[in-house]
Amino acid sequence: MIRPIDLNADLGECLGPGAPEDDADLLDIVTSANIACGFHAGNPDTMARTAARAAACGVALGAHPGLPDRQNFGRHAMALDADQVCSLVTYQIGALAAFARRYGHSLHHVKPHGALYHMAEQDTATAQAIALAVWEWDPQLCVYGLSGGHLLRAAREQGLRTAAEVFADRTYQPDGTLTPRTQPDALLYDPDFVAERMVQLVMTGKLTAVDGTELTLAADTICLHGDTPSAVERIRALRDALVEQGIPVHRP
Amino acid sequence: MIRPIDLNADLGECLGPGAPEDDADLLDIVTSANIACGFHAGNPDTMARTAARAAACGVALGAHPGLPDRQNFGRHAMALDADQVCSLVTYQIGALAAFARRYGHSLHHVKPHGALYHMAEQDTATAQAIALAVWEWDPQLCVYGLSGGHLLRAAREQGLRTAAEVFADRTYQPDGTLTPRTQPDALLYDPDFVAERMVQLVMTGKLTAVDGTELTLAADTICLHGDTPSAVERIRALRDALVEQGIPVHRP
Amino acid sequence: MIRPIDLNADLGECLGPGAPEDDADLLDIVTSANIACGFHAGNPDTMARTAARAAACGVALGAHPGLPDRQNFGRHAMALDADQVCSLVTYQIGALAAFARRYGHSLHHVKPHGALYHMAEQDTATAQAIALAVWEWDPQLCVYGLSGGHLLRAAREQGLRTAAEVFADRTYQPDGTLTPRTQPDALLYDPDFVAERMVQLVMTGKLTAVDGTELTLAADTICLHGDTPSAVERIRALRDALVEQGIPVHRP
Amino acid sequence: MIRPIDLNADLGECLGPGAPEDDADLLDIVTSANIACGFHAGNPDTMARTAARAAACGVALGAHPGLPDRQNFGRHAMALDADQVCSLVTYQIGALAAFARRYGHSLHHVKPHGALYHMAEQDTATAQAIALAVWEWDPQLCVYGLSGGHLLRAAREQGLRTAAEVFADRTYQPDGTLTPRTQPDALLYDPDFVAERMVQLVMTGKLTAVDGTELTLAADTICLHGDTPSAVERIRALRDALVEQGIPVHRP
Repeated sequence: MIRPIDLNADLGECLGPGAPEDDADLLDIVTSANIACGFHAGNPDTMARTAARAAACGVALGAHPGLPDRQNFGRHAMALDADQVCSLVTYQIGALAAFARRYGHSLHHVKPHGALYHMAEQDTATAQAIALAVWEWDPQLCVYGLSGGHLLRAAREQGLRTAAEVFADRTYQPDGTLTPRTQPDALLYDPDFVAERMVQLVMTGKLTAVDGTELTLAADTICLHGDTPSAVERIRALRDALVEQGIPVHRP
Repeated sequence: MIRPIDLNADLGECLGPGAPEDDADLLDIVTSANIACGFHAGNPDTMARTAARAAACGVALGAHPGLPDRQNFGRHAMALDADQVCSLVTYQIGALAAFARRYGHSLHHVKPHGALYHMAEQDTATAQAIALAVWEWDPQLCVYGLSGGHLLRAAREQGLRTAAEVFADRTYQPDGTLTPRTQPDALLYDPDFVAERMVQLVMTGKLTAVDGTELTLAADTICLHGDTPSAVERIRALRDALVEQGIPVHRP
Repeated sequence: MIRPIDLNADLGECLGPGAPEDDADLLDIVTSANIACGFHAGNPDTMARTAARAAACGVALGAHPGLPDRQNFGRHAMALDADQVCSLVTYQIGALAAFARRYGHSLHHVKPHGALYHMAEQDTATAQAIALAVWEWDPQLCVYGLSGGHLLRAAREQGLRTAAEVFADRTYQPDGTLTPRTQPDALLYDPDFVAERMVQLVMTGKLTAVDGTELTLAADTICLHGDTPSAVERIRALRDALVEQGIPVHRP
Repeated sequence: MIRPIDLNADLGECLGPGAPEDDADLLDIVTSANIACGFHAGNPDTMARTAARAAACGVALGAHPGLPDRQNFGRHAMALDADQVCSLVTYQIGALAAFARRYGHSLHHVKPHGALYHMAEQDTATAQAIALAVWEWDPQLCVYGLSGGHLLRAAREQGLRTAAEVFADRTYQPDGTLTPRTQPDALLYDPDFVAERMVQLVMTGKLTAVDGTELTLAADTICLHGDTPSAVERIRALRDALVEQGIPVHRP
């Protein structure tokens, strides 16, 4: 039996012209959406609109909480204690849940954004604080996090469901971490190569790191980035390739 | 039978040293608290702390949503359509409700802040959008608004409970509106005079405007400002004066 | 003698991946750049980087001050008095000028962003406050504003140089104002048509409104939007078309 | 000959009612003012007003740059590289300098706020980046920083003037650092004791740490906090005590 895969994308992060339309296109392809909750990006309008569309498309709705740093898109780590991390996740979950409720949808998962995602991998107390905030809100929610990482472990220890996340357009280091964006070989651009690589990962659990090492990675959900030109086409191609191989594509 | 009165204060709006302590003192005196929700002021920490204290003190917990304008404390009116107003209130209610849930408390009321409060009085669509957001969240919530004003009418038409608000330390114009803060006689400082004036209003429904006109004003809740030196003492004196007259002091 | 034309673009407004690269491409084509100054968008990093590139490319550097509303990209009008408008323009000019100074460049112009641009057209006091802030900083600066509009008149009355701005990819109403973006025919997409239309405008001073009315419009600078896919190609095509007709393309 | 002392206060950090008035009172007592520049607190209005008053009172005007974190008053350290630190200081200096220019005043010094102040003490690259930003703007500016600390050393190495800062209402650890605010004995409240302690420090260069250790501390400027009730009275008492001892009180 083939393990199913989820396709997730971060939505509601852009304010420029055209962004809402792109997001709308993405919602026809992905099976779960992570909505920016107003700290690193997003606002009540984008959240209302994206939650309404996710409800209409039957896409799983997730909170995408970030650090309170709109000026830098939530990309700089901040010195926060566990209580502060827990509260900022609680706040953003509550805010998005209000829109889910308005549109008759419900919150399905939580996936931290940017520096908060990385802080959870580097500091156990941060990972536990995120897991606690999710559990306090609803023990049925699913936590999306780096495959094999600390956030998922903290979430499991808290009794939460988890989804191991892999990145379609990013390369991996021999230790299973992502190649930092600052390095030249961090990103993958060839849509055929990306599709083939992801199909192989889902079918075999194996992925090749930048130095040729064969990694064994759990993959419950693939993160897709819709923010580059032609992203929608690439993502559609990836979904088609997965479906063609008989891989069930749906939410975890 | 004497009509009961509620005492409300806006809390969690300051970040300076000492502010949390003052808020803590106020929570022993007031019967309902309006918590800044992170748009004009406040953050997840202040909301968590204040919600926890309100729960511990048995004080009615209210959302105090403002315009997304921390730089100016939510004091400048913004051109927002009804959908945008509704969504920004939904967002802030949801965020605070998450902390109420964490501390086993529940949301009791919503009172808009600053320019949003005034926009509701000047524009019916804004008043209706606020009422709709409250009703969508929970039809049992109470809306606090200017006594005799448009927000309360919109809330009643939406089927919501309402509390007519009067201001202890502000003077009134002959038409029942507040004297703008920019005018020299806008504020009242004498605690004895303020207490006497509020006791009279609650007992008789009458209040004297700046020009001597006798106003008839419904009063369900008195707004108290804790942000000036010696405010806590003045507020305690007011509460004592009300209680001395046999006026029940509790949430609406 | 053919009147020269300037090509301007709003830069440093995006934080998403790819944005800086696009901006870099645009700086090879345009002759003046309007840099977001941290209120509606932009941050010290984007300002430093864009100012450095503008200096290196010899592109005229302009401040693009907006309303303090990053959550909504400075698109909602705010109720501000003249002093407040003047101060927020002063602030943003000063901030950008510090980067100009760092890179040995100097500030050339000021062009308000979004709702502030439109507020200046609807309220004379706002237009005058902007002009005053520019003049107080440096009476030699140039003000970019809507061709035939109130901001340019206020700037001229203040003794400032002005550049009449037209929009390449927007349609016009019979009264010379832009068709609001909410209307279906607001935007022009065909690059050949846009180029032809702009060449005609620069050569003849005539532009056709949506209803066929022939408008007479001064055009010192054409605003280009780099935020849609393929924008760079379209903008290059427009520049080539202008140059081909012998129209000098340089800063005002 | 007695070494002169400067009295500095952080101004323009509050938006609550009464704040501007308190600031105005403080400007009659202090000899230098550090103005919040819109990142951790402050806005163009408070900057304009405070710069105008400082100019009128002949008080030395300083930039008080903070981290871009208004939600938490700039109190959480952020992971920023040296370029980013330099740029955010440049931005805030430029913004305040524009108001100094408007009111015929000039910038005299720079003193980082909150977490940025502490980051400079813990990370040499941060200290150097701040010093570089100040020097790039104007090599004549003075840097205020912790007496005996890393920021002052970096500033001196950059060729800048410096002022060693001590804190009137804070206690010190045996190593010369401030007792963290989270500890119960961090703050001093008795105005007579504070005045006596500061007079002794200025006259002798000696200060007693919490454990009785006698510290030797350079003191060019005393930081005063105006944000607690009765602060103005305490500060005036301190100034009077210094003057009574024949200590010259003026800017460094």
